Amino acid sequence: MPDRSRRNGSLLILLLLAALTAPAVQAQAVQAQKAPIDLKGFRTVDLTYSFDEKTIYWPTSPTTFKLDRLSYGKTEGGYFYASNTFCTPEHGGTHLDAPIHFAAGKRTVEQIPVEQLIGPAVVIDIRAQAAADRDYRLTLQDLRAWEEKHGAVPAGAIVLLRSGWGERWPDRKRYLGDDKPGDASNLHFPSYGAEAARALLDRKVGALGVDTASIDHGPSKDFIVHQIVTAANVPGLENVANLEDLPPTGAWVIALPMKIAGGSGGPVRIVALVPGA
Amino acid sequence: MPDRSRRNGSLLILLLLAALTAPAVQAQAVQAQKAPIDLKGFRTVDLTYSFDEKTIYWPTSPTTFKLDRLSYGKTEGGYFYASNTFCTPEHGGTHLDAPIHFAAGKRTVEQIPVEQLIGPAVVIDIRAQAAADRDYRLTLQDLRAWEEKHGAVPAGAIVLLRSGWGERWPDRKRYLGDDKPGDASNLHFPSYGAEAARALLDRKVGALGVDTASIDHGPSKDFIVHQIVTAANVPGLENVANLEDLPPTGAWVIALPMKIAGGSGGPVRIVALVPGA
Repeated sequence: MPDRSRRNGSLLILLLLAALTAPAVQAQAVQAQKAPIDLKGFRTVDLTYSFDEKTIYWPTSPTTFKLDRLSYGKTEGGYFYASNTFCTPEHGGTHLDAPIHFAAGKRTVEQIPVEQLIGPAVVIDIRAQAAADRDYRLTLQDLRAWEEKHGAVPAGAIVLLRSGWGERWPDRKRYLGDDKPGDASNLHFPSYGAEAARALLDRKVGALGVDTASIDHGPSKDFIVHQIVTAANVPGLENVANLEDLPPTGAWVIALPMKIAGGSGGPVRIVALVPGA
Repeated sequence: MPDRSRRNGSLLILLLLAALTAPAVQAQAVQAQKAPIDLKGFRTVDLTYSFDEKTIYWPTSPTTFKLDRLSYGKTEGGYFYASNTFCTPEHGGTHLDAPIHFAAGKRTVEQIPVEQLIGPAVVIDIRAQAAADRDYRLTLQDLRAWEEKHGAVPAGAIVLLRSGWGERWPDRKRYLGDDKPGDASNLHFPSYGAEAARALLDRKVGALGVDTASIDHGPSKDFIVHQIVTAANVPGLENVANLEDLPPTGAWVIALPMKIAGGSGGPVRIVALVPGA
């Protein structure tokens, strides 16, 4: 196991050094810009559900996650060996929607620049509204209220909408509102509204994420938020886990999808770095 | 498209501020430690190959990557919709070997702490040796020579062995040494040696990566490096791309695998942040 004792902030030391060596400040600053950041000074939060037989897919998905064992145990060579193969639709579990998912000609998953998927976290809490209305959609007023309290949503932000639905995972009926196989006509869960989504695009965000199954709320029939967001080449992040572990601002999100050539999306591993560990 | 103009280093500004406001240095430092790092100040390098029909798997792999289209085109609702499903063995393309791959009882892929997969990059160049001997293995002497030049390999490092084999991808015959289907008896490519791998574990590295198909060289029959490394709960990263774009030290690597419950490994997206953008 790697040593984890080097977590104390090298940034802090650099700052003190710079302050105490004023004549050498320019050289220090140049060195600091070129030096590696010590990401170990941050608490890491995994915003990803594991893929297993309980992983939730859209009710109309033709299949779900399936893992098949290829090898497990001692080989003729005397050493242990384990290996599996798996199948999954692109859209299920904690996954990314590439722009082409709902927008012809827009980016496939491997074409999304990774810089766009690394950005400051903006966590918008709509638990109170969603508790009163399970089909709630984030409004422009909600967004403005958030910005009055926390400041403007920065360009490049990874927006994470926190509805509280994470505590329902992986109970399909409670999470999706209905668990009838093959029927997506009676789903109920909260998500983004179209006006708020447009306003977030105006702020030039990197991606829109949510702790429910879709960036459109359950009853949506036209998937208008998907249409708006993907047309702007902005990806979605769905079934995001553990949003209760993030502050409203100050964390950094890294969302790295499997690099599927021509993919309309796919499994994504989402990690947040939270300051003040 | 998100605005990418905010790349200039906030770290630089913080350093200058701290240096110029000596009396307030302690308050500044505390604030800095709690403030988010601006990762936009770094150049991003994607160390991952796309998964497609050319993706290289071990010759004995029962299957390879297969993507099937589920939907593509205008729906009855009037909007465009694209979606696919795919199958792949865990071990192929740019992928991670979880400790259980070769070590009974050790960690499966979803159990690897994400902190272990985020660390300073150590790029060891063996192109000259591998050009002279395609089965070359990194020696303890090579490692010592690297450390004399670049300093000790730090705890938590993500070690990336650069053999130059990346320029052969995806030519199976040139990359693996043999392209006979189902036959792994005549493979030739460079990788780690056992002594060097043990020494790297002594340095408490986070993971061992390589730009060839295996952390053991092609002719290996006992996969001794796999055995040694996985027994220490250290994962491997194989078929790592684009190592020519990294400096020997100073970059930071983030390697996020698909979170497969019980997986022996799986597709991984590997990104490096390079300072001095």
